[in-house]
Formats: sequence, structure tokens, C-alpha cells
Amino acid sequence: MEVSVLRLSHRYVRDTRTTTHLFLVARAFGTDKVVYTGQRDKEIEEELKEITETWGGSFKIEHSESWTSTLKDWQNSDGETIHLTMYGLPIQDVINQIRASKKNKLIIVGGAKVPGTVYRLVDWNVAVTSQPHSEVGALSVFLHELFEGRELSKNFPNAKLIIIPQQKGKKVTKTD
Amino acid sequence: MEVSVLRLSHRYVRDTRTTTHLFLVARAFGTDKVVYTGQRDKEIEEELKEITETWGGSFKIEHSESWTSTLKDWQNSDGETIHLTMYGLPIQDVINQIRASKKNKLIIVGGAKVPGTVYRLVDWNVAVTSQPHSEVGALSVFLHELFEGRELSKNFPNAKLIIIPQQKGKKVTKTD
Repeated sequence: MEVSVLRLSHRYVRDTRTTTHLFLVARAFGTDKVVYTGQRDKEIEEELKEITETWGGSFKIEHSESWTSTLKDWQNSDGETIHLTMYGLPIQDVINQIRASKKNKLIIVGGAKVPGTVYRLVDWNVAVTSQPHSEVGALSVFLHELFEGRELSKNFPNAKLIIIPQQKGKKVTKTD
Repeated sequence: MEVSVLRLSHRYVRDTRTTTHLFLVARAFGTDKVVYTGQRDKEIEEELKEITETWGGSFKIEHSESWTSTLKDWQNSDGETIHLTMYGLPIQDVINQIRASKKNKLIIVGGAKVPGTVYRLVDWNVAVTSQPHSEVGALSVFLHELFEGRELSKNFPNAKLIIIPQQKGKKVTKTD
């Protein structure tokens, strides 16, 4: 099962830090790729590339001119589309069904304003609580539930730096 | 069990959005209070107050001049202190023990630079993956694990707005 994240309507500078957090979560929690619409942001692309080179794994970042074409491509190749929104169905009620389908998944995370058509076109609108909080928090918990915690011990091949977990302090080994 | 979050070294403007996300996650995922050090940020305090008035529950936000005194107060009242860091012990290895203790918990989330003393003074250094990502993501998954998913259906009394979960679209009821 391939899992990608689509971030809508990124605004350069204004959203740079939030979108970076979102993409780092997407990478750390085991997705394969992020795609984003809105303004192209080479800073983020560069940062994600550097993080992946240093900390391992294969993770791709792509800019798309049109969310509708990204969504439709996904649906045409029999992938499932899941929009994270506080207005959707509670994750605890639907996650088993979503997990069971085994289809490739595109997880859509809103930006400034999410067009109403997104809600209608996707297969699932899913809420991680019905309270206002953070798309970063929502994506983290969604992926944690989707992968049933296995993402926590995911292996990132070819890392230059590897953390050795410590009770106190920091320990990092270099592999090159 | 009372659970609070301590955010270290907040920088006004630069960190405003990330810290806001962090505090909104703290509220939505069922903690009682956030305390922060660094620069005072009345925008965030105001936003959290408005969100709580609109969406219900009781949630407090406090500024502290010194993280050491906040930490020591907590420890003196027999509370447990947990620092979230990618260098710590994997959450999946320690969460059962942390959950079992039933002590009040202070969850410490770093800012720009975390002093080495934080690592030494706290009871736990816990990693939500050993990969670089986001303190917002780390806090979300930590709370989700601590509360075992019960936070997802937490009730927020006295809300003015309540979302009725929908398969497609948005539905909100007003209570006043």
C-alpha cells in the first residue's frame, strides 16, 4: 500500500513553517511522497531533500499545478482519497474500514481555504476530533492509526546520522 | 490525572503559528493547561481564549518567567515530567509505564534550543520516532497514546458551536 499526502494551497513564507512540519511528519511517519499545490517553495523542497539525505529513506516531494488533476489521477488509478477535516467522520469510527481496503491512499490536507468540491470528490472526509487544532496534529494521528504504530519503528535506509535512543542526553552515530 | 504542557523558549512572531498549533493540539487532545516560557505572546493567549469560549471546555494558558521554577514546582508536588525529544526513549517502549503511574504529568516541548539540563532534570525523555519532524506531531501522538484514544471523543462543555460529523460537507450547530 502506497501512501502519499497532498497539501492544498501552500503560501510561500506565510505557510512555510507549518507546511515543513507537515511534510516532515509525512516523511517520519512513513509515507512515500508529498505533493503540494499553491505557491512553489524551493526552500521546503531543499530542506526535505537534505533531511532525507541525512536521515535516510526515500521520500519524494512534488509541486502540482492543479489539485483536481492530482486527485483525479489518483482516483483513475484506483487509489483511495481521504480528506482530513474537523467536519468529517470521526477517525475512530472509520479507520478500520479505511485500513482494511489496502488500496493506495492519498491523504489530503487543507490549506488556507478548502473548496467545497474537495469534500464532495474525495472518498472519505475524516476528523481527528471535531475541534479546531492543527493539520500537523491531524496528519500525525491519522498516520499513526493507519499504520497501527508500526511507523514508530520504521527503518530509514542509507542514513548518514542515526540516533541511539537515550534515557538522558543525546547520542548520534555517523555512518560515513 | 492532570496533564499540562510546557512549551520552552517561545519567540513572538517567529514561533507564533507553530506554538498556536501546539496549544490547539494540547486543548483538542484533552490536556488542562499550557504554560510557556520565552516571549509573552498576547495574540496566542487571546486566540486560545476565544477558541475555548467558542468550542467549549476549560483550558488555561499561562506564561512563566522560568522553566526551571515551573518544572520544580511540578516535581515538588509529586508530578511526573516528560520531555518530548527525538533523542529520547521510543514511546512504544515506555508509554505503558508512563500511563500506569497515574501521577499528574507535565509534558515539556522544546523551542529553539533546549538546554542540556532539561534532559537531565526530567523523569522521562521520550521520542516519537527518532527522526526529525515536528513538536506538534510529537505532542499529538504522545497524547493520543497517553489517553489511549479516549481523547478523540472528549466532551467540551458549554460550547457555542458544535460540529455534527458529516460524510460530505460541513454541519455546525449553534447552542446560543
